[in-house]
Amino acid sequence: MARIPDSHPRKNSLESRQKIVDGSSRGLLADSAMIAHGRGEAFDYLLGEKTTKTAREASRESAARLRNARRPVISVNGNTVVLAGEGAIRLAAVLGCPIEVNLYYRTPSRVKGLISLLEDWKLKLSEEDAPDGFIGDWKDSVDGVSILGDSPNFKIDGLEGPRSKCTIEGIGGSDTVLVPLEDGDRCEALISLGKEVLVVDLNPLSRSSRMATVTIVDEVSRAFDVILRYLLDDCDYRPTEWDNGKSLKESLKQIGDYLSE
Amino acid sequence: MARIPDSHPRKNSLESRQKIVDGSSRGLLADSAMIAHGRGEAFDYLLGEKTTKTAREASRESAARLRNARRPVISVNGNTVVLAGEGAIRLAAVLGCPIEVNLYYRTPSRVKGLISLLEDWKLKLSEEDAPDGFIGDWKDSVDGVSILGDSPNFKIDGLEGPRSKCTIEGIGGSDTVLVPLEDGDRCEALISLGKEVLVVDLNPLSRSSRMATVTIVDEVSRAFDVILRYLLDDCDYRPTEWDNGKSLKESLKQIGDYLSE
Repeated sequence: MARIPDSHPRKNSLESRQKIVDGSSRGLLADSAMIAHGRGEAFDYLLGEKTTKTAREASRESAARLRNARRPVISVNGNTVVLAGEGAIRLAAVLGCPIEVNLYYRTPSRVKGLISLLEDWKLKLSEEDAPDGFIGDWKDSVDGVSILGDSPNFKIDGLEGPRSKCTIEGIGGSDTVLVPLEDGDRCEALISLGKEVLVVDLNPLSRSSRMATVTIVDEVSRAFDVILRYLLDDCDYRPTEWDNGKSLKESLKQIGDYLSE
Repeated sequence: MARIPDSHPRKNSLESRQKIVDGSSRGLLADSAMIAHGRGEAFDYLLGEKTTKTAREASRESAARLRNARRPVISVNGNTVVLAGEGAIRLAAVLGCPIEVNLYYRTPSRVKGLISLLEDWKLKLSEEDAPDGFIGDWKDSVDGVSILGDSPNFKIDGLEGPRSKCTIEGIGGSDTVLVPLEDGDRCEALISLGKEVLVVDLNPLSRSSRMATVTIVDEVSRAFDVILRYLLDDCDYRPTEWDNGKSLKESLKQIGDYLSE
């Protein structure tokens, strides 16, 4: 792609768009992935393309719940891998948890392609310096991140067909799932199984947003960066009685304020 | 595609999405077309996926200006053809004006494919009953709609490269252009040429929306249906002193109201 100058006010947004276009032309994404990304772009535009105070609070709460979880897992779809796969690996390395590739429109070749992309990034990230505040062996932690999803051995109750498949080592046996860009039906099914579901979704009105335990109304790569900082810098913060409806209302109000400016 | 039941609250939106996915897989649309459609979906969602009072007034004004024009033209891109090509032909048949396929990312094969799709629809529509209120020979009127764009012979001042190309029989020689889903640069260039530019755009904050003479903040196929009714039923209405900024503010307010409900 043509290099976008650092000064361009929408540089990050345009780079993210290009990642989706490239991922799509490499066959990693479902037909509707670009449309979903466009919807996200519009909502991000309405948030001023920045992390709001409300989103920051939801990320802080999510970090605390992930740290507190017995068996956390990060569930990723194609768009999440393409937009924020490296961020997902950093979170998983810090949490010591697996990542599961879990696709609504599951095909073996897409699952395989996305796992292979994540494995490539693990190699790259294991050579990087540890993030500030990380205690331990960074290379070992990154190498230790399991990338699950190609051999589903568990079925999510309440769902039919390929979208119900997952692994017992990952989503199936987890108590807390960080799941960006999730479909509403699946979010609801995970909640019904008694799991804590931490969603990243730019649309505060979506069914996933309304169903989730905690909804982070933010762009996924920004949200992962914020969660990482809270995991590393804010270890004393404990999960609260989280009022997700209130948080979503605040996000809606921020969009309304942006529109009326 | 799987048939979506009539009772589904988002049936129209899902059908439109499928048209875009199909058009894309047939090679009729640019890479970014699906992303643009997703952005539109998000804004339409925020309008409750229905034509607002403000959009209706803007469509009424546009109908009057098209009826009043000396040389109106309808400029269509790939998404407009796929989503609302039949509506464009009906409008052109009533107005006795040409349609010009005019692409931002122009390639000869996409122009050809879109023209051929419009020609197929002309054949189909010429066999249909005339819309209520139409006076004249419907078949002759539909047959008489010129589909321009494959032999550009005019350059829009102020633009560079393929995106500057158009025809003197269509956009070049027109005084009034109905142009849905237009790029901001091109909208601005058409305005600079002294033309009346009537835009259909779901994003009231886009540069096209802000540059246009009249902006209809509505989904394109709904807007075409509304304009058609005003063309046929409201012949005494004359163009007004249109305050487009005021109209856009009202659209923003309607989104804000929807969010705060």
